[in-house]
Amino acid sequence: MFLILVYDVGEKRVGKVLKICRKYLNWVQNSVFEGEISDANFKKLKFELKKAIVEEEDSVIFYILRTTKYSERQIMGIKKGGDDIFI
Amino acid sequence: MFLILVYDVGEKRVGKVLKICRKYLNWVQNSVFEGEISDANFKKLKFELKKAIVEEEDSVIFYILRTTKYSERQIMGIKKGGDDIFI
Repeated sequence: MFLILVYDVGEKRVGKVLKICRKYLNWVQNSVFEGEISDANFKKLKFELKKAIVEEEDSVIFYILRTTKYSERQIMGIKKGGDDIFI
Repeated sequence: MFLILVYDVGEKRVGKVLKICRKYLNWVQNSVFEGEISDANFKKLKFELKKAIVEEEDSVIFYILRTTKYSERQIMGIKKGGDDIFI
């Protein structure tokens, strides 16, 4: 499946969450990651994130695209980091 | 087309950006919006955002899904607002 992940977590936990997400996905920019991921790795990712975040304060959104990659990604404004592995 | 929008803008401009995005899309939570949008409205949205943000400091990411809505959205952690129009 193809996954788009957006996180919003407390400053103290950003480093840890970034590190976990980078193990499984490509960093688009800022709080956004994306990439192909297997069901097994998606489970692992969620398990690790669940331990890293404070569920009462933080949030992580997963968009799951089963059939296809999205058609297009456009970015307006500055590029705040990101892995640039594809496009 | 179906659009997922993620913004990251300076605090001073959040209100304005939120207001613009809400005109065209549904607020999922925090800095994430989504929804069906026509080509014409997508152009309008981008035009308005371009005027509202500081391109050297802010960023907006658009994921464009031409053929279909995403398969699934999962949220981990708290729900920080959002319109809840669908799902």
